[in-house]
Amino acid sequence: MRTIDWDYTNNTIIMIDQTLLPRENRVIECRTIDSLCEAIKSLRVRGAPALGAAGGFGVALAAQISTAATLAGITHDIETAGKTISATRPTAVNLSWGVNRVTRAVEEAKNIQEARMFALDEARLIADEDVEKNRQLGKHGAKLLEDGDTVMTHCNAGKMACVDWGTALGVIRSAVEAGKDIKVISCETRPLNQGSRITAWELMEDSIPVTLITDSMSGHVMRKGMVDKVIVGADRITADAVFNKIGTYTHSVIAKEHGIPFYVAAPVSTFDFEQFEDDIEIELRRLRRWMWLFITLRLMQPLWKM
Amino acid sequence: MRTIDWDYTNNTIIMIDQTLLPRENRVIECRTIDSLCEAIKSLRVRGAPALGAAGGFGVALAAQISTAATLAGITHDIETAGKTISATRPTAVNLSWGVNRVTRAVEEAKNIQEARMFALDEARLIADEDVEKNRQLGKHGAKLLEDGDTVMTHCNAGKMACVDWGTALGVIRSAVEAGKDIKVISCETRPLNQGSRITAWELMEDSIPVTLITDSMSGHVMRKGMVDKVIVGADRITADAVFNKIGTYTHSVIAKEHGIPFYVAAPVSTFDFEQFEDDIEIELRRLRRWMWLFITLRLMQPLWKM
Repeated sequence: MRTIDWDYTNNTIIMIDQTLLPRENRVIECRTIDSLCEAIKSLRVRGAPALGAAGGFGVALAAQISTAATLAGITHDIETAGKTISATRPTAVNLSWGVNRVTRAVEEAKNIQEARMFALDEARLIADEDVEKNRQLGKHGAKLLEDGDTVMTHCNAGKMACVDWGTALGVIRSAVEAGKDIKVISCETRPLNQGSRITAWELMEDSIPVTLITDSMSGHVMRKGMVDKVIVGADRITADAVFNKIGTYTHSVIAKEHGIPFYVAAPVSTFDFEQFEDDIEIELRRLRRWMWLFITLRLMQPLWKM
Repeated sequence: MRTIDWDYTNNTIIMIDQTLLPRENRVIECRTIDSLCEAIKSLRVRGAPALGAAGGFGVALAAQISTAATLAGITHDIETAGKTISATRPTAVNLSWGVNRVTRAVEEAKNIQEARMFALDEARLIADEDVEKNRQLGKHGAKLLEDGDTVMTHCNAGKMACVDWGTALGVIRSAVEAGKDIKVISCETRPLNQGSRITAWELMEDSIPVTLITDSMSGHVMRKGMVDKVIVGADRITADAVFNKIGTYTHSVIAKEHGIPFYVAAPVSTFDFEQFEDDIEIELRRLRRWMWLFITLRLMQPLWKM
């Protein structure tokens, strides 16, 4: 199944709970906005494009479960839900992008029934378009990879970060599909191990050779000539910076030091050229008493200078 | 108690089992060369200077438990044990340094009793000298740290890596002892978490402010001006390279990129100027099916160019 989808039988959002991977491949249902927000905050669904679909399906869910008797009432419920959903991951621009797109689609509605229908159709369209966009991104990106390349990646910009196929891993999948022999080095991605839990699992499921390393090993493997290219996804790309999982900036400096090409694979929805680095609030999470964790962080001013 | 010591009551080596920290502070005994080798291989005792003492006490233990009836017999037992001990961690030069020093001390012995006594005295001397050396290292190194500095460190070059006080953390302790206000950023140090389990624990025990970060965050914290200096220990320093825990090289490249001073605190026993980088065998450990872990790795050719 897709990473996130609409269940027409029960009128709910269904998704693979990514916090349980790779041990368990469990599908969970979100019947309320609160449960969707919890799933987003807990990273049960994560990754920029998947969050776009989650935002869209969230507004669609708000439209289905609204008990308002008027079009103004359902519009109010949708807007309230949209704000709540967008606030769960402030750096993830795709989330509010999905929310806004479906909210705007509802503006065309002339009655409650149309509002519900338009919202769901638009949310479905976001999901379908995302799969098609990733396929296109993969097709174009695959040209950058050569037969025999070893490609390093960080975090998970794969199928599980999107609705299907993946951005950074989509490029790798498309290159493999085109007959190229590609090996992958996946960084563990502390603190939540998306690299070891999700990326390595996804690639093993697809029989693409993958070696897992600790994040700090990137310097060693690049110095030893074990990496031909680096490719990562992005949470947000502003006019002056790429934002992505903590560690991406570190890998980019190491790649620059060793003259290794560093690519960011991201769909247009990730671009946000009206904002600048300093406008973006970074998500901080505190685990235990003395452990600060920066989940999403700025990537690579140095890259612009390369 | 010290990290590693001789128990005169039971004629055994005693040490704090570092694999159980910070949850449990358990002292274990080594009554045989096999149990000492197991403790070294399992990193129950680790850190260059502590391994020097472990090597010395190991030879002393071999002398005490030898059942040989002649001086030649006990010398043979000591040499056999020394080779076995040295082979457990080939990159850790201090281990064989400690073994060789005590083995040489035994050469002066004229009978079995003297062999046992000389071995134990020399091993004790290594431990005592190590504490004194760390104190001196701390005293000199503390001059490099200024009041108000935030110092980043990787892995554990603290009391638990030595017999007492520490090398990199010894420098920090001496600066604090001299009245300077020093804050520490400790990198988690995957895969075995010596930074979070041991360094953060040691510093909290001493009430020195410490913030734990994931290894990949070093790029972010250095870019944001949150780090004034970096100080680490070393496993081995050859004529052309510093060898230390995986990740050290990555941090050094990031420090160079941001113009942040990077110091290595190590006693003379860590120096091995007769060898070169390519002579050194790197320790590799394989965890799980697809996870390669490099425990000890080359650090910083780029630093020489700074």
